[in-house]
Amino acid sequence: MRQRQEIQALPREAKLIHPYRTIAEEDGVIVILDQTRLPGEAVFLRLNTLDQVAHAIASMQVRGAPLIGATAAYGVAIGLADGADDVRLQQVVETLVSTRPTAVNLRWALSRMSKRLEAVSPHQRAEMAWHEARAIAAEDAMANADIGRYGLALLQTMTAEDRPLSVMTHCNAGWLATVAHGTALSPVYAAHAAKLDIHVWVSETRPRNQGLLTAWELEQSGINHTLIADNAAGLLLMQGKVDIVIVGADRIAANGDTANKIGTYLKALAAKAHGVPFYVAAPISTIDFYCPDGSAIPIEERAASELGTSAKQVANPAFDVTPASLISGIITERGVHLPSELRP
Amino acid sequence: MRQRQEIQALPREAKLIHPYRTIAEEDGVIVILDQTRLPGEAVFLRLNTLDQVAHAIASMQVRGAPLIGATAAYGVAIGLADGADDVRLQQVVETLVSTRPTAVNLRWALSRMSKRLEAVSPHQRAEMAWHEARAIAAEDAMANADIGRYGLALLQTMTAEDRPLSVMTHCNAGWLATVAHGTALSPVYAAHAAKLDIHVWVSETRPRNQGLLTAWELEQSGINHTLIADNAAGLLLMQGKVDIVIVGADRIAANGDTANKIGTYLKALAAKAHGVPFYVAAPISTIDFYCPDGSAIPIEERAASELGTSAKQVANPAFDVTPASLISGIITERGVHLPSELRP
Repeated sequence: MRQRQEIQALPREAKLIHPYRTIAEEDGVIVILDQTRLPGEAVFLRLNTLDQVAHAIASMQVRGAPLIGATAAYGVAIGLADGADDVRLQQVVETLVSTRPTAVNLRWALSRMSKRLEAVSPHQRAEMAWHEARAIAAEDAMANADIGRYGLALLQTMTAEDRPLSVMTHCNAGWLATVAHGTALSPVYAAHAAKLDIHVWVSETRPRNQGLLTAWELEQSGINHTLIADNAAGLLLMQGKVDIVIVGADRIAANGDTANKIGTYLKALAAKAHGVPFYVAAPISTIDFYCPDGSAIPIEERAASELGTSAKQVANPAFDVTPASLISGIITERGVHLPSELRP
Repeated sequence: MRQRQEIQALPREAKLIHPYRTIAEEDGVIVILDQTRLPGEAVFLRLNTLDQVAHAIASMQVRGAPLIGATAAYGVAIGLADGADDVRLQQVVETLVSTRPTAVNLRWALSRMSKRLEAVSPHQRAEMAWHEARAIAAEDAMANADIGRYGLALLQTMTAEDRPLSVMTHCNAGWLATVAHGTALSPVYAAHAAKLDIHVWVSETRPRNQGLLTAWELEQSGINHTLIADNAAGLLLMQGKVDIVIVGADRIAANGDTANKIGTYLKALAAKAHGVPFYVAAPISTIDFYCPDGSAIPIEERAASELGTSAKQVANPAFDVTPASLISGIITERGVHLPSELRP
């Protein structure tokens, strides 16, 4: 466990763009902020072994599609410390790829690592893996900063009379879900920095309550926000209290259908019913161009225990799919796209 | 606190139609099942004073629109024990009417009590109040039994291939929410009794988790059910795993717009998107013919503490309004009606 200040000081590129960062590298290991302990306490964990990294992803000590991708990339580097021949490389990648089924960034990052490492000889792989993981992490932070800039431009075109501009989000797609900045919250942070009067509706996001992470994040930055039960989203949209919905994504199919945290689809339906724009914010790495549409996205079923009940039979799908027809636009590091206009 | 068996044995008319009943009368007091202690433990409370009755309603020791109405009626009888002049009667009714703002059954029951008691002299009022409260409770149980019969006829017209007929509900509109039988669950109990192969999707219903009461109820009767997070409803409807949605109601406007537990509206939107029939089950007393449409229904804002979080700013609306256009039909003790066909 480490002091927060030390962690924050570690990555130079992150310091330039945002004070908060979720993952840092140190003497051949990585240090993460254990998100299962938030918002109660900020505990940092050192991950020394492949198994520790795989466990951190599967148990959601790190979570959020972009952060999962970056963590897995570092996991490859850690996994190659004691040997890096083709068999070991494959073993490491397979261990990491099996941790979570839905987020495409995990596959994307591991595929990028594999390609890069297969092209060099085994004795160069460990060093190259650290290099490539570092690049993936830095690129994620940069892409998210760009998402913030494009999102800010979008928010600046909107006005809310007699009250702050109100953004509704779901789950946590803030800096905690990424290497830095966040995806859905990056425009919010950019708006706050630009002195826009902004307010965020934060939904609890059962069963894992990642909304509490979002509330915690926004509280750290002094951004006005209100926590609600997930069930309240429809009423607030009906009452005209929401100007825009912005969510993150775990996988975007080529046609724009988007898998994101369970409950996203209900918000999209309600936004559509009330003419409120519904945006997805995600780096290009979240788009799976090999996946034609949402029906091809596997939905992770997580443990019944996450609902924290003694009920005997529980279903706990972790994601749902929002059809492209309900999505006003997708904000990436390249700009704001219609779902039908996604290009590799 | 009393033994459960004794409570169940008390009301004769209830025994004839259903083994479970939520409220019973005993030597000038009423005995209720404390629903804030369920599903952990079944604790019975004796309510001796007006304040105890008002507290039981406001704190949701009794809950569910029909049960709130019956409890308030008994509350009038208890409140008139030490005096029943016009001033006291008005005082008692005002105390009870202020406990919960959304459920119309509360107003309906108190208005019926007032009219009945104002027509007789003060010295007859206490006895008359017990008589009338008893009638309201008995009528609720009978109405719900009829809702079950009409709902069963509806379910018998439906078939699900290769799996049980799957009903999705929200909150708790079972026998716990009424004097007996339940509203939304009355057709489910009737179907189970008729040996229909039936399964219920039970959503948690944050922030108060009344879905756990529904799961508990269904478990008592051995009915197949699966607990889900509220967020999962959209995905399950998209996946074709739900044949019909049946919910209760706290107030139905004259045009069929229906206020029910927060989150109901999101399920209605998702049911509509996938062509799944969406029914409201409620006794006629839930229909407010003086309320033209949903926009006139007051929405109760409950305490932030119900979300159980340290977040500083919380919004906690307890109900939302489902527009009549999303409702396939309303099941009452008179039959199954189109929302546009409600008649006093």
